[in-house]
Amino acid sequence: MFDKKLIMIPGPTNVSDRVMRAMIKPMIDHRSPEFKALYESLTENMKYVFQTESDVYALTVSGTGGVECAVGNSITPGDKVIVPVFGLFSERASEAVVRRGGRVVKLQITWGTAPTADQVAEAVQKEKDVKAILVVYNETSSGVTVRELPEIGRIAAENNLLLVVDAVSILGGDELPVDKWGIDICVTASQKCLACPPGLSLFSVSQKAWEIIEKVEKPFYFDMTEMREFGKKKETPFTPAIPLFFALDEALKMIREEGLENRIRRHRVCSEAFYAAVEALGLKPFPEKKSRSNTVIAFNKPDGVDNAQVRRIMDEQYGVVISPGAGKLKDTMFRIGCMGIVSETETLLTINALENALAKQGYKFRKGAGLEAARRMFC
Amino acid sequence: MFDKKLIMIPGPTNVSDRVMRAMIKPMIDHRSPEFKALYESLTENMKYVFQTESDVYALTVSGTGGVECAVGNSITPGDKVIVPVFGLFSERASEAVVRRGGRVVKLQITWGTAPTADQVAEAVQKEKDVKAILVVYNETSSGVTVRELPEIGRIAAENNLLLVVDAVSILGGDELPVDKWGIDICVTASQKCLACPPGLSLFSVSQKAWEIIEKVEKPFYFDMTEMREFGKKKETPFTPAIPLFFALDEALKMIREEGLENRIRRHRVCSEAFYAAVEALGLKPFPEKKSRSNTVIAFNKPDGVDNAQVRRIMDEQYGVVISPGAGKLKDTMFRIGCMGIVSETETLLTINALENALAKQGYKFRKGAGLEAARRMFC
Repeated sequence: MFDKKLIMIPGPTNVSDRVMRAMIKPMIDHRSPEFKALYESLTENMKYVFQTESDVYALTVSGTGGVECAVGNSITPGDKVIVPVFGLFSERASEAVVRRGGRVVKLQITWGTAPTADQVAEAVQKEKDVKAILVVYNETSSGVTVRELPEIGRIAAENNLLLVVDAVSILGGDELPVDKWGIDICVTASQKCLACPPGLSLFSVSQKAWEIIEKVEKPFYFDMTEMREFGKKKETPFTPAIPLFFALDEALKMIREEGLENRIRRHRVCSEAFYAAVEALGLKPFPEKKSRSNTVIAFNKPDGVDNAQVRRIMDEQYGVVISPGAGKLKDTMFRIGCMGIVSETETLLTINALENALAKQGYKFRKGAGLEAARRMFC
Repeated sequence: MFDKKLIMIPGPTNVSDRVMRAMIKPMIDHRSPEFKALYESLTENMKYVFQTESDVYALTVSGTGGVECAVGNSITPGDKVIVPVFGLFSERASEAVVRRGGRVVKLQITWGTAPTADQVAEAVQKEKDVKAILVVYNETSSGVTVRELPEIGRIAAENNLLLVVDAVSILGGDELPVDKWGIDICVTASQKCLACPPGLSLFSVSQKAWEIIEKVEKPFYFDMTEMREFGKKKETPFTPAIPLFFALDEALKMIREEGLENRIRRHRVCSEAFYAAVEALGLKPFPEKKSRSNTVIAFNKPDGVDNAQVRRIMDEQYGVVISPGAGKLKDTMFRIGCMGIVSETETLLTINALENALAKQGYKFRKGAGLEAARRMFC
């Protein structure tokens, strides 16, 4: 029925044909000049997207693997780490520290709200010997962005703490000047706002981070000093997912062509259209207004409709795939990925499918209200 | 000049168009029925190739990552592990145990020879409280296969030891009946004899292994119990490299179509042709005869020719890419991958390019001797 479904989940996202085609370039030797050229291009473009002069790496692993890698290279057993927990992925980040033997100072924050700089500053003051702050910048499970991340960066700098940021579901889709905000290790993944297929985690490593990493007993596959060593000859320590490296290179080139600023604005406009539509349909965005994400649109399911049924109708009858909530909010929430390849077209098609599915499930609203509210944002 | 180069290195290998095209299937949600169907197909076909009834998993990570995962799930700090070391990759396996905090009983064996069952049995007798034996079945750096692996499997069984096998550069290209040989965790990777692009590690886990894994404090991304938990609903714990899953599924289907036995025979015949050619050219295979690998052909560079130049001529003038030696043998050895898509055609093209490059570098031999010796193996 559909040539291609519209994948509007919070990653993996839709991938352009151009990026897809890059994957089927003939195989190359990962120790060849061809690979070195690819590595060099990737590095340059990653620095652009991360807005950093620091070292950057792409590793064959999922985003969570990337976060574990950041933790494994900077935290040793017994180290104290402040982790604001306000959803499933910040819980995961905290778990990565625990598994590593770190002591987590957990700032438990209500789902739907974001940790504030004041809360972090208070924890820094109260606790002794904190080594690092680990912040999930965009909580994919609740659609919340930590808008006070720049202030948290200042707190980290003032107290000489390491700032590790999980930016998996946001980098490339919202403001994130890594150097300017003082982020020491910033982790993202290929399949979110970069609009590349899944399988790679990308991260930046500051000089301050290197000084800690050099002193830490590291895991093997995740050893960043090995990545730095091999990086000098434009290679990876272990065989990388070459087709995904080709795809990422193409995806990053497309970001450069569009311009990061334009891309971030596009994500913001689409997210505003989504929120306008959600409210026009009488539905409620899950997060507090000031913390709403521009890349993950989370909103409550209205009473009387079945979550799975709504998504099934959208999928089967309109070819649009969205997600339920995550964790404890699985049944009561919908989540839409506003990531990568998202424009007026994808936004309106998604809202139209949502309206139709809600109507078929008996939810009462003025038909077309969401579409109309969204459309106005693009004028 | 070349439409496509012939990648005859010990992985990544050439990939068929059919497998390449599978990668560009439209993106799917990794929590959707489409993904579950893919997962189910993959699982069934992996069991066929591993010749096992045990659980099997594919993880987004390189082969070395897969070996570290096996170690991380079965070894705890202080555990004693016997590791025969006879090349770069067995050294790596040993390093993975060390990083995990395990105590390695290293059986240092001359490069070019393979550990014997007697050596392993002796170490088991001598050492107290050994928990596991970790064997690299095919040492990619020296072209050596451990032909006594079945006997080592019996020793492990008799002494109730865990047998972990790194089969990265061999599974799918030579005999490896995992259950029959009593292998508890068998690890391979996508980009070797399975002829799939790199980026995935595959492994099997026996019931005996599970009993140990359940008791061990595990890393996060590598946690096999999470893989088992999500596997029950035909999902992965973290977002997998979906295009590579599609590719692997297609590559495994092609193995089923060919038949594992036929495929193993094809690898053996091609390797015999390679060894015959090498000897006909007056060159010397690096490994002792009884331990020669059917998947990695390692032989000494003759005096008076430059390793890099020979490979450059092969690459630039004939479109055939082979590898130098690994580690300390980088300059004095050539290695050819006899993996995956390898038949009379690839074998003869590679030998022809090698002959021409050697001749251009001034090496004296009867022109055509290698080709002739190889060709005879295919009659």
